[in-house]
Amino acid sequence: MEIRSVGDILQAACAGGREWTLSVNAPHDEAIMKAVTGACAHGFARALLFGDPPLIQKTAADAGLELTDRATIVSRPDPKEAIDESVEATHDGRAQILVKGLVPTSSVIRALLHKELGFRSGRFLSHVAVFDAPVYDRLMLLTDAGINITPNVQRKVQIVKNAVRVALALGMKRPKVAMLAAIDTLRYPAMQATLDAALVSRIARSGVVPEAVVDGPFALDNAVSIEAAKLKERAGEVAGRADILVAPEIETGNVLYKSLQTFCGTTYASVVVGADNPVAVPSRVDSPESMLASIALACVLSG
Amino acid sequence: MEIRSVGDILQAACAGGREWTLSVNAPHDEAIMKAVTGACAHGFARALLFGDPPLIQKTAADAGLELTDRATIVSRPDPKEAIDESVEATHDGRAQILVKGLVPTSSVIRALLHKELGFRSGRFLSHVAVFDAPVYDRLMLLTDAGINITPNVQRKVQIVKNAVRVALALGMKRPKVAMLAAIDTLRYPAMQATLDAALVSRIARSGVVPEAVVDGPFALDNAVSIEAAKLKERAGEVAGRADILVAPEIETGNVLYKSLQTFCGTTYASVVVGADNPVAVPSRVDSPESMLASIALACVLSG
Repeated sequence: MEIRSVGDILQAACAGGREWTLSVNAPHDEAIMKAVTGACAHGFARALLFGDPPLIQKTAADAGLELTDRATIVSRPDPKEAIDESVEATHDGRAQILVKGLVPTSSVIRALLHKELGFRSGRFLSHVAVFDAPVYDRLMLLTDAGINITPNVQRKVQIVKNAVRVALALGMKRPKVAMLAAIDTLRYPAMQATLDAALVSRIARSGVVPEAVVDGPFALDNAVSIEAAKLKERAGEVAGRADILVAPEIETGNVLYKSLQTFCGTTYASVVVGADNPVAVPSRVDSPESMLASIALACVLSG
Repeated sequence: MEIRSVGDILQAACAGGREWTLSVNAPHDEAIMKAVTGACAHGFARALLFGDPPLIQKTAADAGLELTDRATIVSRPDPKEAIDESVEATHDGRAQILVKGLVPTSSVIRALLHKELGFRSGRFLSHVAVFDAPVYDRLMLLTDAGINITPNVQRKVQIVKNAVRVALALGMKRPKVAMLAAIDTLRYPAMQATLDAALVSRIARSGVVPEAVVDGPFALDNAVSIEAAKLKERAGEVAGRADILVAPEIETGNVLYKSLQTFCGTTYASVVVGADNPVAVPSRVDSPESMLASIALACVLSG
């Protein structure tokens, strides 16, 4: 099916008749619990809940939720143990999809890296948000709003590759990638973001990212508005039509992400990709739709 | 009068019965010309148009505008001369408000600094955007989306002071200033934005910015949403109630500004402050309302 909205992601998760097992750490939050039981109720998920059993029961009761036999509580009252065991479960086959509960994203990432680095090297994790673009009638991707702080050029190429993989999995053909900065031209040496953007584009076009069209630097408006790109005479295949927005560093990515969320009320799904399977990273400030969409997205991406 | 929206700024400019003379460089763009003649038609402005006379006439005709005797064309076909002369006019008393036309903002800033540095030192220019906050029923300020690239802590304090002066002039009492980052806590040494935010807050509270409450670091949602701040247990007077958002560097400021503009369709006014008088810096991608509001804001701020 064609996936053109965050709502379609949930449909896609339900459509295949497949079932994924979620590995949730510290689900001690009503909204997260609602999202997990929602995924179970939609029929595409079962869940292992690693946490404090009485607290899990209380959270479910407070939220007016009934825990069915699709959810299994595993007693791990210590948050660190809950995280470690939830990561372990996605490696030993008990579960496929890791879901972050009421713990810091950084702790989950650390546990994940610790576990996976033991198996193989070359792993690179990044945060990808998928949202209903306020300017398009389709999905847009934003990266990295949550993990990589000040990525260098090599890391930025990896961030692009991770996001392109997500876009392709969502059915986009040759996604258009815009490397964001404050302006569309190179300013040497004052604006490093513009230099990095140009270099990443050049590297991507040399054959390193053949499945996508990468261009930059872009001011945001010229990346997503055909009208703005025309006015500013910003040419190129990506101008005004970007599918993937790549922030120069975490502040820009995070503030843009939060702006969509808080100022525009946009629905989105957030995952961390680059591990064996995507990790769903719902945040407590997410809407219930966004939380459920994050879980559905992680499932759909895991194939 | 109380100024609670961008629309109110235009009302305030009209209300006083005062008249400002605009000094516009290279007004060779229909939208900019509309905004300038609009300000004249509203009765609060006269205009000196420094540019290419036939091109100015053609631009006005193409836009269906009639140039009244409130607008005076001064022949300066060369863009650099147009800029220099428009800056000069705001110093020799022929005009009060500099308005950027179809030239790069950086060229105008350079001419302005060149001129003003001759008179006095200690000048510090910064970009301030004023917009109808999508989450409040009042105005919000954002700085710096357009001039200072990677300000150090001393520059960030000056950016705060400039924005606070604008907020006070708009009638805000003890404005609440949020220093933005990707997270709300200090991460040493990895996240410089969080360290700068904390230090600027500390300096401001030591008496350097007595007219405002400055706090940080803030993730955007916790700065502007009381609900998010509560969920994340982000305490303090500024949490969820920020009047002024201060970006850690230009990429974050510019992308947030463009996000409001492109994704949220927010109306705003943009000025450069720190010179003798504020400079209106409309951009061609601005809506007609935003362009006119930028001119009105510069007038209102000039007192």
